[in-house]
Amino acid sequence: MARLSILQLGKGAIGSALVGQVAARRQEVKARLGVDLVYVGIAGRTAGAFAPGGLDLARWRAEVEAGAGLDGRRLLKKASGVVSGSAVLVDATAEDDLVDLYRDVVATGFHIVSCNKKPLAGPLADYRRIKDLCRRKRRFFLHEATVGAGLPVIKTLRDLLDTGDRVVAIEGCFSGTLNYLCAALDRGEKLSRGVARARELGYTEPDPRDDLAGTDVARKALILAREAGLDLEPSDVRQEPFCKVRRRGGVDEFMRSISELDAKMAKRWREAAARGSRWRYVARVDGACRVGLAEVPETGALGRLAGPENVFAFRTERYKDHPLVVAGPGAGAAVTAAGVFADILKVARAIAGTA
Amino acid sequence: MARLSILQLGKGAIGSALVGQVAARRQEVKARLGVDLVYVGIAGRTAGAFAPGGLDLARWRAEVEAGAGLDGRRLLKKASGVVSGSAVLVDATAEDDLVDLYRDVVATGFHIVSCNKKPLAGPLADYRRIKDLCRRKRRFFLHEATVGAGLPVIKTLRDLLDTGDRVVAIEGCFSGTLNYLCAALDRGEKLSRGVARARELGYTEPDPRDDLAGTDVARKALILAREAGLDLEPSDVRQEPFCKVRRRGGVDEFMRSISELDAKMAKRWREAAARGSRWRYVARVDGACRVGLAEVPETGALGRLAGPENVFAFRTERYKDHPLVVAGPGAGAAVTAAGVFADILKVARAIAGTA
Repeated sequence: MARLSILQLGKGAIGSALVGQVAARRQEVKARLGVDLVYVGIAGRTAGAFAPGGLDLARWRAEVEAGAGLDGRRLLKKASGVVSGSAVLVDATAEDDLVDLYRDVVATGFHIVSCNKKPLAGPLADYRRIKDLCRRKRRFFLHEATVGAGLPVIKTLRDLLDTGDRVVAIEGCFSGTLNYLCAALDRGEKLSRGVARARELGYTEPDPRDDLAGTDVARKALILAREAGLDLEPSDVRQEPFCKVRRRGGVDEFMRSISELDAKMAKRWREAAARGSRWRYVARVDGACRVGLAEVPETGALGRLAGPENVFAFRTERYKDHPLVVAGPGAGAAVTAAGVFADILKVARAIAGTA
Repeated sequence: MARLSILQLGKGAIGSALVGQVAARRQEVKARLGVDLVYVGIAGRTAGAFAPGGLDLARWRAEVEAGAGLDGRRLLKKASGVVSGSAVLVDATAEDDLVDLYRDVVATGFHIVSCNKKPLAGPLADYRRIKDLCRRKRRFFLHEATVGAGLPVIKTLRDLLDTGDRVVAIEGCFSGTLNYLCAALDRGEKLSRGVARARELGYTEPDPRDDLAGTDVARKALILAREAGLDLEPSDVRQEPFCKVRRRGGVDEFMRSISELDAKMAKRWREAAARGSRWRYVARVDGACRVGLAEVPETGALGRLAGPENVFAFRTERYKDHPLVVAGPGAGAAVTAAGVFADILKVARAIAGTA
């Protein structure tokens, strides 16, 4: 029986959901693909667990908590040389500065599956270096869940490009969080209440300012742009914030201060409604890349969005008059984990080498 | 260099587009995947060409025309034993009764990639036999383009199921052709004119009655239902026709007679418009499977569809409140060929065994 060892960074909402999903499907994957998915390590920021023979997934959380000090880097050091055969590093964190670590693990033969946007949305040179290395080493670097969570966005773009289509523009609402807030404001809810609720529901980034500044959407737009072959730096993305965001101070302080913006945002929304339109946070990738609030007709495809939905419209040479559209909830732990899991299964299928 | 031999049945609009797309990307695929896509045979109904070393794709049409009598079955007989290594049978026909042929080629080691709905929408026993055989032999049987042409429909469903999600319902407009006709009738165009135009544009099945009777949509619904794990016979699909269809006589005769329905359909559409609604041909797969005309609000997601667009809305355990939606043109030679090509590349990637 072939085996795919899994080393996971991150044990938050997404990481936890993923462990549960993989555990629930392990027997089925064994039977169908002839590949055993074995969790050999899981690390949080301050603790982790490692077991070359496989962690006991029924009590993985306790095992991780018992392993104080075993963070991601230490875990990987421990694993190198011990883990043989096919292995995948799963990045379920929102951490920056992981490109070097990625490079080290790919050099030792790991594949990478990630829902972490940051390492993909940094300097172009970093992006190219890791992508080139993976190509040379013939390792997967899959990151479907970095854009649209479980929605088929990057794989759709890849299929278009791989079959020789040419992208004219990718446009839409790429942030479940901001769409959720837009819909809340449509209903007359206060901004501060909406942000607090979105945070409770797990829709926001660890620091909600990453969403509100538009940084999260800008990262997704940049990832799509690069995937489509555009050589862009983060500074090339024209980014207007969803609302004014004070960067000084911690997250809690910011959450207390956000009600200061309630009146201004409510007014903006009322004025648009009087014009028969709505505000939506729209991203567009063509030759360039820009993200910002745009006034759209309330009865249009974007205006009618409600809840944590994303929309991605691909206009290409073949889909010229009518775009190819993928839409749906683009945030949440279960659907993001499912996006990561689908990528892991892609690696598993390649190992199986057959259908 | 690994090699994937391609044997193609069908040289109509889709088959021709596919040969062009593969030829245009062959060098790129070689460089990226290390797999050479080699067309060793192409057969139409009455003529075909076979060259174990690879056909000259710059003049494949002339080579096929020169090979009178070499139909699909003869081509496959000729190929068996001669074609070694990995090989894929591409079915770009709309022919029935190919299940036995599929079984023979899978038994000799071929993968299958198809945009032909009929062999997948026949008796359940046939469907099971070919799917089981492929599973046992670890051969791919990919048919993304049978539903929604180039849209990511079946692969999206597969990812949902493979990651442990459960389908509640798949609903939408599955026929580019019928949506095109609905939109034409919305604009006040005559049914007969719309059907003639749809046929010119290559949107219809070879026999447009397959579209108008709803048979084509019923087949797609059945394929999705079976892919989702429902054991249904064709007779289990509740199918109401788009309009009355006389089955006697040939296609040309039918095309001349269709104007008899113009007045009745126009009236039906006018009456709906007066109620603020539109007719759309809607399919729904839940425990059961049904297709037929449904009156929908003109400003809703389905009512606003125009042109040859498809919509597929997946409601699942994870996508419960808001569905995962895939939409866009679901007919046309180029996008259908691209759907087939993406499947061929999936086989090629498995052969490459790596990213």
